[in-house]
Amino acid sequence: MNRSTEHDAANQEAFERLTTANPVLTDVAPAIDVVPGMTKNTVLTSGPPLPWEAYEGGQRDAIIGGALFEGLAGNAEEAAEGFASGELKVDGCHDYGCVGSLAGIYTASMPVFVVRNETHGTVGYCNMYEGKSPKRLNYGVYDEDVREQLQFIGDKVAPTIGAATRALGGIPLKPIMSRALHMGDELHSRNTAASLLFARELMPAFLDLADVPRSDVRDTMEILTEDHYFFLRLSMAAAKAIADAAHGVENSSIVTAMCFSCAEFGIRVSGLGDEWIRGPHASVQAKLFDGHTEDEISWMGGESPITETVGLGGFAQAAAFPLQAYQGGDPQAMVDRNLKLYDITQGENPDFHIPFLKYRGTPTGIDVFKVVQTGILPMMDIGIAGKGGGQIGAGTVRAPMECFEAAVAKFGG
Amino acid sequence: MNRSTEHDAANQEAFERLTTANPVLTDVAPAIDVVPGMTKNTVLTSGPPLPWEAYEGGQRDAIIGGALFEGLAGNAEEAAEGFASGELKVDGCHDYGCVGSLAGIYTASMPVFVVRNETHGTVGYCNMYEGKSPKRLNYGVYDEDVREQLQFIGDKVAPTIGAATRALGGIPLKPIMSRALHMGDELHSRNTAASLLFARELMPAFLDLADVPRSDVRDTMEILTEDHYFFLRLSMAAAKAIADAAHGVENSSIVTAMCFSCAEFGIRVSGLGDEWIRGPHASVQAKLFDGHTEDEISWMGGESPITETVGLGGFAQAAAFPLQAYQGGDPQAMVDRNLKLYDITQGENPDFHIPFLKYRGTPTGIDVFKVVQTGILPMMDIGIAGKGGGQIGAGTVRAPMECFEAAVAKFGG
Repeated sequence: MNRSTEHDAANQEAFERLTTANPVLTDVAPAIDVVPGMTKNTVLTSGPPLPWEAYEGGQRDAIIGGALFEGLAGNAEEAAEGFASGELKVDGCHDYGCVGSLAGIYTASMPVFVVRNETHGTVGYCNMYEGKSPKRLNYGVYDEDVREQLQFIGDKVAPTIGAATRALGGIPLKPIMSRALHMGDELHSRNTAASLLFARELMPAFLDLADVPRSDVRDTMEILTEDHYFFLRLSMAAAKAIADAAHGVENSSIVTAMCFSCAEFGIRVSGLGDEWIRGPHASVQAKLFDGHTEDEISWMGGESPITETVGLGGFAQAAAFPLQAYQGGDPQAMVDRNLKLYDITQGENPDFHIPFLKYRGTPTGIDVFKVVQTGILPMMDIGIAGKGGGQIGAGTVRAPMECFEAAVAKFGG
Repeated sequence: MNRSTEHDAANQEAFERLTTANPVLTDVAPAIDVVPGMTKNTVLTSGPPLPWEAYEGGQRDAIIGGALFEGLAGNAEEAAEGFASGELKVDGCHDYGCVGSLAGIYTASMPVFVVRNETHGTVGYCNMYEGKSPKRLNYGVYDEDVREQLQFIGDKVAPTIGAATRALGGIPLKPIMSRALHMGDELHSRNTAASLLFARELMPAFLDLADVPRSDVRDTMEILTEDHYFFLRLSMAAAKAIADAAHGVENSSIVTAMCFSCAEFGIRVSGLGDEWIRGPHASVQAKLFDGHTEDEISWMGGESPITETVGLGGFAQAAAFPLQAYQGGDPQAMVDRNLKLYDITQGENPDFHIPFLKYRGTPTGIDVFKVVQTGILPMMDIGIAGKGGGQIGAGTVRAPMECFEAAVAKFGG
């Protein structure tokens, strides 16, 4: 198992693409209008795609919930039959330029952020944060409350942000992301500053939006800044637009996507085509909300590790000491873990810096060879779902070694 | 030199007051309308008060600039004559409930933040940030540009924020300050997050201000968030309202103010009345802007160390690693210095926490006995003025031991 000089040059090319990408929010629109290949009867979900029958637990519930929300079926049984017969289609977000938070449900009418990488032309999409209720569709829950909240996002929040975004001629995201890393965010499990900075960008437009009711603007301001998560979806869409630019470099052993479904973890590698290299679930260290226990932890999908793929999240943990209160851990342990990730990455990010590490750039561009050689596994910050649905905590996970070993093997390593 | 148990109980009382104070911004208004004792021909400046003749350099220029801005004299010579004859009055900010940033010039028409400590009824005032130009009245410069900017603040920014503040029924500042410490601020030399959070509080009111031109709102949004300093004046006014609540506790050896003029440093101690205990200048470690040298460093006053007096600024430096880029220093040195300050303070702040120190409360309530016993001097983060006027850098300073030794002596120590 040896990397060749061909890998070195290819990985440097992939790294250059990862770090010169320039993600700009250009629009907010229903998925059907902007996501290539989206159809009215498609539901997108997180992770390397599985046959319908293989989706289980909260992820299955979430997919069915998506169908119900979209009016594709009258009840859960009808929806399940529709997916089984092929009348309704379930597919993986990534192949549509989308990335899913937790179960990551996209349906035709759901609004998505459109983030264009102005340097390379790649486009990433992400649907919108549902709000701070632990009951959310992307955490496997669908009921009247969840439906109303999704409707509120679609009817009020998305059009308001969309109108402001268009009025401003688009919003460059990298400056917001760079600054947020100096303000306690790592842009995966903590987006507090980025959400505020994003709200700040929108404010001048909000003052002038003639066609949007003032109450919608006020409601949108509220959800934008009510907790630590609103900007995550923009961070994810930006990361997808960045990572896709680095995909498809011949011989490159740099990871361009990491995600999971209810059944397995998967990675994509720049020089290994669009195939998902699959392995078992990640290992988790969790801090659960009061009243919850470890045996409730449930995998229902997640593609937010696209942020780690581009040098954020777990790869910027030492920028976000406040996370210890939310997902557990100790500041010095956060620093130590973050430092080790330099051993498995191609380089230091020129735009994403960690103040505590004397503004060292975040470790960026995971090399599957380095992971196997060092035994150091990529670390990700994630929200944790419970078996009954809903968020029950947060924590860090380590990607499974099997995926990286399999990738190395595919390079003939 | 021994502290008695009387000091212990008194210091605990002062500490309780420091930490239970609840500063709320209630208004923005011209100094003449709200500052007790302010008169039309008074100019307030930073530091233990001096006779007019003793003010020199940038501080003298700033006082004269204040008189010119207020129309109290036709030119600098007239102004100087006015102060010499007593026709114009110069006095210290602190005795009016005000605190001055750098030279700290207050005149009758200048708008001030009114911050009321709802727990104890004390009120702190601070005038407004002039903007990011290095040329500012409070840095000893007065010319047409400075005059126009002061006019802009008085005519546009202050009325807009005042109207929004009144519409909101006041803005509690402690929640903003507590959150900002988790977002890279220490609320003296870095107020980036606090300024954004404050703007966020104003925004709902901004949407509805019928009597304020939209362009004023837009201009105000801009200056609120253009750099790292806007909130400092609110942090200072809040700190003054907090510190004054802890002043006047019999036998308490807790510091309730630290400030300096062009000539000397001074402290007030809770149990030692309103007298300033004066000493030589602080010692400085500076990082100067490009093109400036150490021999340009000039003292022209400063009362922003009121923030350190209540457990912020240098006493919260380990919450603000991004400061290293601005004022120099090394993250580990920032942590080490911050930790030492626990040895000279009464307790840990219950509301101001440092994420990197596992959310330990900031060291709060400087005890003059502990300073003398340990030899550890209070550390302050400050902006640095140049001899020609204007800001030429930033850095940390240490208060002079002489003040603390003199205070201990006054207690019969």
